[in-house]
Amino acid sequence: MNGLKTSRCLSLSVMLLKRSGNIQVKVTGVKRLSTAEAPATLTKENDKTRVLTMETLNPQVKAVEYAVRGPIVIKAGEIERELLQGMKKPFSEVIKANIGDAHAMGQQPITFLRQVVALCTCPELLDSPVFPEDAKARARRILQGCGGNSLGSYSASQGLDCIREDVAMYMEQRDGGVPADPNNIYLTSGASDGISTILKLLVAGEGLSRTGVMIPIPQYPLYSAAISELDAVQVNYYLDEDNCWAMDVNELHRALSTARKYCNPRVLCIINPGNPTGQVQSRKCIEEVIHFAYKENLFLLSDEVYQDNVYSPDCKFHSFKKVLCEMGPEYFNNVELASFHSTSKGYTGECGYRGGYMEVINLEQEVRAQMMKLLSVRLCPPVSGQVAMDVVVNPPRSGEQSCEQFTKEKKSILSNLAERAKLTEEILNTVPGIRCNPVQGAMYAFPRIFIPPKAIEEAKVLGMAPDMLYCLRLLEETGICVVPGSGFGQKEGTYHFRMTILPSSEKLKLLLEKVKDFHVKFLQRYAALDAMSR
Amino acid sequence: MNGLKTSRCLSLSVMLLKRSGNIQVKVTGVKRLSTAEAPATLTKENDKTRVLTMETLNPQVKAVEYAVRGPIVIKAGEIERELLQGMKKPFSEVIKANIGDAHAMGQQPITFLRQVVALCTCPELLDSPVFPEDAKARARRILQGCGGNSLGSYSASQGLDCIREDVAMYMEQRDGGVPADPNNIYLTSGASDGISTILKLLVAGEGLSRTGVMIPIPQYPLYSAAISELDAVQVNYYLDEDNCWAMDVNELHRALSTARKYCNPRVLCIINPGNPTGQVQSRKCIEEVIHFAYKENLFLLSDEVYQDNVYSPDCKFHSFKKVLCEMGPEYFNNVELASFHSTSKGYTGECGYRGGYMEVINLEQEVRAQMMKLLSVRLCPPVSGQVAMDVVVNPPRSGEQSCEQFTKEKKSILSNLAERAKLTEEILNTVPGIRCNPVQGAMYAFPRIFIPPKAIEEAKVLGMAPDMLYCLRLLEETGICVVPGSGFGQKEGTYHFRMTILPSSEKLKLLLEKVKDFHVKFLQRYAALDAMSR
Repeated sequence: MNGLKTSRCLSLSVMLLKRSGNIQVKVTGVKRLSTAEAPATLTKENDKTRVLTMETLNPQVKAVEYAVRGPIVIKAGEIERELLQGMKKPFSEVIKANIGDAHAMGQQPITFLRQVVALCTCPELLDSPVFPEDAKARARRILQGCGGNSLGSYSASQGLDCIREDVAMYMEQRDGGVPADPNNIYLTSGASDGISTILKLLVAGEGLSRTGVMIPIPQYPLYSAAISELDAVQVNYYLDEDNCWAMDVNELHRALSTARKYCNPRVLCIINPGNPTGQVQSRKCIEEVIHFAYKENLFLLSDEVYQDNVYSPDCKFHSFKKVLCEMGPEYFNNVELASFHSTSKGYTGECGYRGGYMEVINLEQEVRAQMMKLLSVRLCPPVSGQVAMDVVVNPPRSGEQSCEQFTKEKKSILSNLAERAKLTEEILNTVPGIRCNPVQGAMYAFPRIFIPPKAIEEAKVLGMAPDMLYCLRLLEETGICVVPGSGFGQKEGTYHFRMTILPSSEKLKLLLEKVKDFHVKFLQRYAALDAMSR
Repeated sequence: MNGLKTSRCLSLSVMLLKRSGNIQVKVTGVKRLSTAEAPATLTKENDKTRVLTMETLNPQVKAVEYAVRGPIVIKAGEIERELLQGMKKPFSEVIKANIGDAHAMGQQPITFLRQVVALCTCPELLDSPVFPEDAKARARRILQGCGGNSLGSYSASQGLDCIREDVAMYMEQRDGGVPADPNNIYLTSGASDGISTILKLLVAGEGLSRTGVMIPIPQYPLYSAAISELDAVQVNYYLDEDNCWAMDVNELHRALSTARKYCNPRVLCIINPGNPTGQVQSRKCIEEVIHFAYKENLFLLSDEVYQDNVYSPDCKFHSFKKVLCEMGPEYFNNVELASFHSTSKGYTGECGYRGGYMEVINLEQEVRAQMMKLLSVRLCPPVSGQVAMDVVVNPPRSGEQSCEQFTKEKKSILSNLAERAKLTEEILNTVPGIRCNPVQGAMYAFPRIFIPPKAIEEAKVLGMAPDMLYCLRLLEETGICVVPGSGFGQKEGTYHFRMTILPSSEKLKLLLEKVKDFHVKFLQRYAALDAMSR
């Protein structure tokens, strides 16, 4: 494979630079390919001025940051390549606990989901006795909704009608009968796509009237990235770490009134269950937040992609939509709410399919037409992702052939996750200098880590955030890849990292023990240095 | 299905408005759902001020237009619903010739492509004797490249390594050995996604230094839509209708020097083979265009999604990359070029998979890192679309089990398209007042239509473009849905429509005869009115 050869010719060296508080990646020393077949034309003789340089690049792109696949992950890739090349390391593999990618960590797909997708892909399989009838029935119904009965035709930009109907039914059941209108449902390419679309509509104004978007800190960095890209104003409200990362309406008031001095806050984003923080919001808290949004005239964005990932027996997922309805017509008919779901999380973990949906309620009809126009430019979300989404909202029902296996698989995945959530919290809390809130839901722990002053100083000298130094050292010494808290935002002077709870229990225990050892050594090393410098 | 019920409750009435030259859609009279289950809370009692209104909407979103799924298509959907409800019309079905959606028009999927995707979806099928070994080998290789050997894990943001290697090999073979580096290849979610990403990087500046993007007129409206959304400046260069829609360097010079008075033109977009115009660029013309871009320091965007759709025996597809290389190192090492391909067109027509790739050459390394960061925010392109893309660039080879069937299917689809291209041109040119250039490639005819002055006047009164009036009448009277030329841009005073050549030859003949009858009647009607008003 010539391609492989050229790809190996490339040597990337990544330098981490810190400029005005932002971690940036500088890639240097990339050699041009030099395969035997390459003609002389490939030697760069003289460099003409480029059109696209760092100076001429869109400044809004420059401002974007995304830690989940940032410098630490690039470094992890490098180390993996070095291991492949036989380089000696104190570990034999890189464990990627940086991203909520369940299948990559060994989770098996839900059989029924893949069966329905395969049947839609190769309709000849509809005649095969290997596939169960309930999967075939779903596939037939979906194919009937596709142009030319093919997954290969564009769907409506809003998504296939029959799948939007299934989403609406799912939401009605989930929310105890609160009505859902398929016309308010839009299938998306993962939740990120939907969130970006809604934010794009809401961004307007200059100077004091520039749109402010309230986001939790810590947040999932899609939000800050989208805000940068759209040139909106990020308005931080802090989650209460001492209170299990709860949302606090007083803090919302503080953040809002501060922000009103320099922008026009119009949007309030909530992630429930929390990413990276793992809390599950109480019903009372949701009611307070909705009341706040109603009073302050804010558009609500509720990121509910972890709605199936609730582990603590004391916690329950409440959708914003349901609470909104229960608060009465004055709220339910007026508060503008977009909520998001995805195939990537839950018990399916189908990230690669890029399936998702959003429901948008109380959207003005003319604005709705504008959104449809915007969606139509991108033609449609991937249709196989739409099919995967359908199985999430329309799983085998009691009495159907696949129900037993499906239920078994689902329960097994979710109970494993619950076990790992507990395990992670417990082991981390045995480490001196690490404190971890209960992982009530979602897929991550976000422990607070004590970083000795001397390490903080060293990080400063190296031009990186202290928890970036911590995570880099952790990666280099143990092969464990986690993301520094600075990539998600945190109260000044506090440090964290985000790790997924996705590795198998066995691997997770090993990983956590390694973290423990590393942390203790890290403390010792810098305490010793502290002592020496005194 | 409650969902279905509520969806039928909705009555949409679409008004077409023309404001300052832009067709806009106004959706009015949408009733809220009123199912038996809906609680009283659903009755809107008092309207609180909304956060998101037409006044507060992002003005860049408002500025976006996209004709291919615009008002005429919404109207077509309405008519389809009316037909379903049993309403009497002068036709029994709506024929959607508005969008290049091959499978929706009955084209069958390439068997091998679907087999590979299905095998990746359900790896248990790898044991089935029903599937050929070459498809299994490809599926195994791709799954080995996926995290956890699952399509459900995120791929690298740039796309799976092994597929990018296949793309590079495909390009090298296509371009007679011109080297392609997998590191310069990015898998995308259809070509539109890649084009938007590159344009996003290139947009910067205010006032006179605002980025200008040169696009052909007529153009595929993704370009104008992306330019509006990004708040860049659209710089039109006109294709020469009298010369088979050829690109003319003198016209490029004219457009550029005019544009330099009010913006900073930095990008030149080419669509080859042309959409909506169907021309295939000559090698000589491409060389001239590259020389122009080199001299004028423009970033080249070459949209080559129809590279497999060339029908005229006198025409051949030349990639910009190949010609660039042949022009020598001064060009090949300096001109910044992004080119695009897709699974949606060609002979596969797999639009729903949202598969595509772009190759970007001579991109500064720091800018490349910025682009990677931007791509990583969206995590990855849909993995099953990546698999579909792999089959396009890595089809069964001579001696492989599936080669014969694959070649037969491919040839059949392409020869059918060639036949329809010829048929369309020929029949349209028999109509008085319609003139159609040869459809050398791509999937559309873009005939010029004569619209009588009285019809133009009527359109003015109705506040719509004359060819919009024409297309609306065509739709209402015959059920044929085509897109007015005004949605793509055209020389002032000329009128066109775009229709696909995708319906089966039989249906296409019928369609073209209907267009012919309609056009003759249209001329007669307005000529008569002309006479009456004299």
